[in-house]
Amino acid sequence: MKMRFGTCFIMMMILTATVSAQSKKFVHNKTDLRIQSQGSFLVGGTTLTTAGTFDVDNALKPEGQTFHGDHAYVFYQVPRKAKKLPLVFLHGAGQSKKTWESTPDGRDGFQNIFLGKGYGVYLLDQPRRGEAGKSTVEASVKPVTDEQFWFTQFRIGNYPDYFPNVQFPKDAYSLEQFYRQMTPNTGNFDAKVVSSAVSQVFDNIGDGILITHSQGCGPGWLTAIQNTQVKAVVAYEPYSGFVFPSGEVPAPIQSNGLFGALSGVEIPLADFKKLTTRPIIIYYGDNIAKDPTNVWNKDHWRSGLEMAKLWVAAINKHGGDAQVVHLPAIGIYGNTHFLMSDLNNVAVANLLAGWLKEKGLDK
Amino acid sequence: MKMRFGTCFIMMMILTATVSAQSKKFVHNKTDLRIQSQGSFLVGGTTLTTAGTFDVDNALKPEGQTFHGDHAYVFYQVPRKAKKLPLVFLHGAGQSKKTWESTPDGRDGFQNIFLGKGYGVYLLDQPRRGEAGKSTVEASVKPVTDEQFWFTQFRIGNYPDYFPNVQFPKDAYSLEQFYRQMTPNTGNFDAKVVSSAVSQVFDNIGDGILITHSQGCGPGWLTAIQNTQVKAVVAYEPYSGFVFPSGEVPAPIQSNGLFGALSGVEIPLADFKKLTTRPIIIYYGDNIAKDPTNVWNKDHWRSGLEMAKLWVAAINKHGGDAQVVHLPAIGIYGNTHFLMSDLNNVAVANLLAGWLKEKGLDK
Repeated sequence: MKMRFGTCFIMMMILTATVSAQSKKFVHNKTDLRIQSQGSFLVGGTTLTTAGTFDVDNALKPEGQTFHGDHAYVFYQVPRKAKKLPLVFLHGAGQSKKTWESTPDGRDGFQNIFLGKGYGVYLLDQPRRGEAGKSTVEASVKPVTDEQFWFTQFRIGNYPDYFPNVQFPKDAYSLEQFYRQMTPNTGNFDAKVVSSAVSQVFDNIGDGILITHSQGCGPGWLTAIQNTQVKAVVAYEPYSGFVFPSGEVPAPIQSNGLFGALSGVEIPLADFKKLTTRPIIIYYGDNIAKDPTNVWNKDHWRSGLEMAKLWVAAINKHGGDAQVVHLPAIGIYGNTHFLMSDLNNVAVANLLAGWLKEKGLDK
Repeated sequence: MKMRFGTCFIMMMILTATVSAQSKKFVHNKTDLRIQSQGSFLVGGTTLTTAGTFDVDNALKPEGQTFHGDHAYVFYQVPRKAKKLPLVFLHGAGQSKKTWESTPDGRDGFQNIFLGKGYGVYLLDQPRRGEAGKSTVEASVKPVTDEQFWFTQFRIGNYPDYFPNVQFPKDAYSLEQFYRQMTPNTGNFDAKVVSSAVSQVFDNIGDGILITHSQGCGPGWLTAIQNTQVKAVVAYEPYSGFVFPSGEVPAPIQSNGLFGALSGVEIPLADFKKLTTRPIIIYYGDNIAKDPTNVWNKDHWRSGLEMAKLWVAAINKHGGDAQVVHLPAIGIYGNTHFLMSDLNNVAVANLLAGWLKEKGLDK
């Protein structure tokens, strides 16, 4: 009994739970959109079937029953007089389609901004995430206190310090919203499972432009390789998953980031060349080191940016049309890893809109 | 080696995985909505904190780090010239806000139907579900082949037979969409955690009407008890979670359903009386037994409907305004457990719209 009490006491010391008292900061956006069509559907995936015959009188036995999983969830909106090519949005690690919706401080995200510009939008929850939670593989979901790590990894600052020029709101409500918008995997991340489902989104909707973030960028390249209906790829802060042709994978880039050295992924030349047939643009934000440093978050993204430059060079060497834009190099400062929801996200969106126009993708 | 091969062979016998070849049935809705405001936010929840101080140079150590969980996710849309009271939608077991969006066969769900009628809509993913996946308690997520059970439990029919009059589309694509729209718990269902978050939705948005489905109806009653900004409650097919005043809980209703006998939940009279201050309506669909039967799905819902009638009587005895509508009794046949997405869901919605008007809630 004494030991049990002792254990309990230590547990209480280590982990405390507090009911949230969020200030009532919620305000309605002023959007004013004319939506011609909106809805949601599930797409792609796999079906597990247990052998045997279903017996309705023993309906809890698995024999003859199915499990559908590994699909993506899609919420779509198409405005009146929409442009020809819609935008398909794929989130990054630990995120859902929320990434593209209201910002942590309640402003319009890319969903509303690009609807306002006349684009149809398709927001995905990738397989094994969010409302596409049914996974064909098992997972354990645990609460882990790690949010100050993510604050730092995502370059809001070096916790508890915000970067002086950061484009992230500094009030407590916004940071809480940001932490709460993460949502766990319900099965391990598998780039091929994701790209298979995303490719089937394009099979369903036809031609469109794929917009990816972070971990979503890897499956994004694979989707473009699989499906010619992907007419352009826009990638915000890719890190891993850069594909190179056999024999052309660069040496790993050393990094003091917490994920260590960054390697490219080898694929057949024929697949790689499929990436050279469509325009591609990659954006990175601010507070990324120029040269190796011991500040691990800045050095993590340094390796990503350097790899992106090698990758763009490889695409263009093979006849493609790719570019990487490091925002501070064109005078846009303070962006975190979440450029699409930063305080200057309208400027970030306008930059993309300009590129789409330049490439004739805005008709 | 031989044994391993044998095991592998048996596994393949038992469970087979097939990549889905969904027919391309996706079509855009023709909605034509004027949306004045739309966005999303997280609300409610708890914060876990590990004692100690965060050290940015040891950022993977839990000391001083937080975990925000147990909030709800809300997606909202407000049409132009919206009615005064918006509708807040809470899904049932194994579901997300998808319940209220496009139907399995791609028609408008309650989201679009009620936007078209001029109501603001707030669609929730409850705590520990969908895009509100961060849970303060651990969970194991496993793929279980059980969909033919759900087909039967949700009264589409007695698998593989559809009920002859069923208002569910009989094509393979629609059934697959229905199976895929389920999404797992990332922490156990806890009615108080849910009602706490839902109540805070009303704290944020002000007065509104709460619309609940199935397992969501239990937390719905608790929310109404907690928050006077809930101006009416609409419950589709509640089963468990009926609350009664101390000393007035009826005897359990025996049932041949797979969940056994159904009991009421005892709460203080003072709390119960809070449910008598606002109009409440409950709807049930078709193919529910009138008298006890061995057909387990029909008998499961018989016990739910009988308990609802006892509950409504208790509310009205204490001065409240509650009613239960069994659709076949008013000439509407074939509805499953998912009345809001059945083939006749426009009629189901119009019925609700008529009640809202009757109660003066449609201004």
